[in-house]
Amino acid sequence: MSACSASAAPVAEGVVPFRGDRQAGIVTPAQDRLHFVALDLTTDNRERVRALLQKWTSAAERMTAGAETAPGGAVGGNPDGPPADTGEALGLPAAKLTLTFGVGPGFFDKLGLDPALRPAGLAELPRFTLDQLDPALSGGDLCIQACADDPQVAVHAVRNLVRIGFGTTSVRWSQLGFGRTSSTSTAQATPRNLFGFKDGTRNLKAEDGAELLDQHVWVQPGDGPAWLAGGTYLVARRIRMHVEIWDRTSLAEQEAIVGRTKGEGAPLGAAGEFDTADFAAIGPDGLPRIGEVAHIRLASPEALNGVRILRRGYNFVDGSDGQGHLNAGLFFVAFMRDPHAQFVPMQRALANKDVMMEYIEHTGSAVFACPPGLSDGQYWAQPLLEA
Amino acid sequence: MSACSASAAPVAEGVVPFRGDRQAGIVTPAQDRLHFVALDLTTDNRERVRALLQKWTSAAERMTAGAETAPGGAVGGNPDGPPADTGEALGLPAAKLTLTFGVGPGFFDKLGLDPALRPAGLAELPRFTLDQLDPALSGGDLCIQACADDPQVAVHAVRNLVRIGFGTTSVRWSQLGFGRTSSTSTAQATPRNLFGFKDGTRNLKAEDGAELLDQHVWVQPGDGPAWLAGGTYLVARRIRMHVEIWDRTSLAEQEAIVGRTKGEGAPLGAAGEFDTADFAAIGPDGLPRIGEVAHIRLASPEALNGVRILRRGYNFVDGSDGQGHLNAGLFFVAFMRDPHAQFVPMQRALANKDVMMEYIEHTGSAVFACPPGLSDGQYWAQPLLEA
Ligand code: HEM
Ligand code: HEM
Repeated sequence: MSACSASAAPVAEGVVPFRGDRQAGIVTPAQDRLHFVALDLTTDNRERVRALLQKWTSAAERMTAGAETAPGGAVGGNPDGPPADTGEALGLPAAKLTLTFGVGPGFFDKLGLDPALRPAGLAELPRFTLDQLDPALSGGDLCIQACADDPQVAVHAVRNLVRIGFGTTSVRWSQLGFGRTSSTSTAQATPRNLFGFKDGTRNLKAEDGAELLDQHVWVQPGDGPAWLAGGTYLVARRIRMHVEIWDRTSLAEQEAIVGRTKGEGAPLGAAGEFDTADFAAIGPDGLPRIGEVAHIRLASPEALNGVRILRRGYNFVDGSDGQGHLNAGLFFVAFMRDPHAQFVPMQRALANKDVMMEYIEHTGSAVFACPPGLSDGQYWAQPLLEA
Repeated sequence: MSACSASAAPVAEGVVPFRGDRQAGIVTPAQDRLHFVALDLTTDNRERVRALLQKWTSAAERMTAGAETAPGGAVGGNPDGPPADTGEALGLPAAKLTLTFGVGPGFFDKLGLDPALRPAGLAELPRFTLDQLDPALSGGDLCIQACADDPQVAVHAVRNLVRIGFGTTSVRWSQLGFGRTSSTSTAQATPRNLFGFKDGTRNLKAEDGAELLDQHVWVQPGDGPAWLAGGTYLVARRIRMHVEIWDRTSLAEQEAIVGRTKGEGAPLGAAGEFDTADFAAIGPDGLPRIGEVAHIRLASPEALNGVRILRRGYNFVDGSDGQGHLNAGLFFVAFMRDPHAQFVPMQRALANKDVMMEYIEHTGSAVFACPPGLSDGQYWAQPLLEA
């Protein structure tokens, strides 16, 4: 099974295939912009939800293909009805739009689905030290991650899906990400997060090949309910960054906290960004070059029994905080095979020991199960609604 | 005097000259992204404000030139001090960054400046019908408009200026705009706002030439205090758009409200986007082709005794509204010679008669006076602080 799309048909430039073995937007090289939306079901009627997911799937397929709907194309073909498409992306290219779909715990509860269908990975995350989670920025029965190189294209897609969902779903929270923080392909330069450091250097990448991705990202047959095999879990954390405080610490302190240099992004003690971090090296002061509680040590597979995740986060600025500061941070998104075996030990280590915690605050949290990709004719979550 | 920059020196690609007769970011072709910040003075000490404006000016000049500060370059040259630059734009090009500066009414009040220096245009705007202004999203003693083709570059610039201002200014509100809604140059294709319509078709543009711009945009000698001649006023309105309701109206109704077609953007009754609107034309039903209360009629110079403004707004999405909808809209920014003679009658006509008002809500408002451009060695607001 290829890690990318099964589609053999040639696709237009700027178009990421919508159907395939895997959902797009996971190992797809991270696009520049994000619009993420978490929705709640406002009905317990399975038939209505099924009808919505069918409509969503065809709209998603159309939009990711960059297909235009003429502004005159009315909903249901009724010439006096509202336009089928909201129109603000008319004339814009597909801009690598991907739409990635996931279901949260409420999807199973509200629809009263067979408990055997509910994947164990959706069990609630534990509370981590210093968590300051706002329920209004957490959870959700469904999620749609829209990524594109043009924010208008990502926003347009989310908005049209939200619109189609009216009466069956309502927006719980939504997050705009203005710049990717992670590279997920070796072909991309590593971008920087709002602490000014390169982010994504030692990330799982598309080029890591099927074996590593199967081990860390894709749910394997036998891991849980059959419908999720070939899928993955999405963990989202809205992390407010107190940039004003960070900006007052010295470069040396910042680099010690991360465990990498700020300019090049090299592990401390090495020269190049992609040089291997030597966690055993001792500096001239007799202390480890990369500190015992450096972020990259705590989060490394070396410290976590080989645990790895695929990070795919975005920077955000949501206005100001009413206290004279920008409300800015990292919208952390990561994909993994099992949140409780991967994200939980990693975040526990960071929450308990990472000095970076003095400069950040986790304000939102959600976990979704993302089904595998769709073959022709299938719609999102079909195996859950036809079981 | 040229409408653009006075600088004759060749500049690097992607760099908009910072100094010149006029401030950049006004008739500069609208860049793709915006980060706008309104700040309050937290001191009444003129000397401290003067020192800040000097620091801001040199930082702004450096950043708009795309000049990099190595991450090791520490504040004040102290190697143990915090880095001089926050670093997240390291390696990024200038991306046409412009930083446009303005002062609000509080700048004069708090610093106790000579009343003769205070321009009449800063008098409070009247309350318009249906205004729902949130004080937390309105006003400000100072503003900085950062526009760039890369949002990380715009955010980086605002953040570093906010940081430099710490102790002298605090953030009152800030707004990220993800996509421009107006073209301000005939060389640009007209973008679309979140109602799906082209926005900026009949806007004042750079190419309109000095005469029109002097008449409508630039404050002329004799208009008021001498320091503002060659400057302009910036009116900002945060306009929430109830896209869900708009999306439920028919195409015909939407086009009647705007007075233009949605696809092409042509005035009703004409074929091409840039065809002249014929406000006298009568349709087959005996009614005006372009309705009496169509947006483009109400806001047109024909209806307003020749009044025109230069619009330079951006689309925004600020998460969700807690009621199941996206919090989206238009961050309206316009430049003009006199807000009370231009924006006020225009907005009054729209607030009272525009059917579009049923779909929008003005939630924030601010007016700033933007001084003319800086010649070599000058700093922002210098004539106000050395008067
Ligand atoms: C605002 C919060 C955060 C910031 C600013 C941040 C920043 C960074 C930076 C600069 C790196 C080094 C470059 C790289 O390899 O990507 C890094 C590495 C990493 N981070 Fe974070 N991070 C944050 C939160 C998190 C969270 C919440 C997790 C997961 C629970 C996480 C997991 C990782 C991992 C797995 C690595 C790679 C470690 C290795 O070298 O093996 N980070 N982070
Ligand atoms: C969300 C609110 C608004 C939306 C969606 C909107 C949309 C539009 C659209 C689609 C056009 C036609 C294309 C063009 O020439 O740009 C237009 C024209 C215009 N709008 Fe707005 N507008 C809004 C608010 C405002 C406000 C607050 C003002 C000023 C008070 C304004 C002033 C104008 C002007 C002057 C024109 C050109 C009229 C002419 O043809 O001469 N608009 N607007």
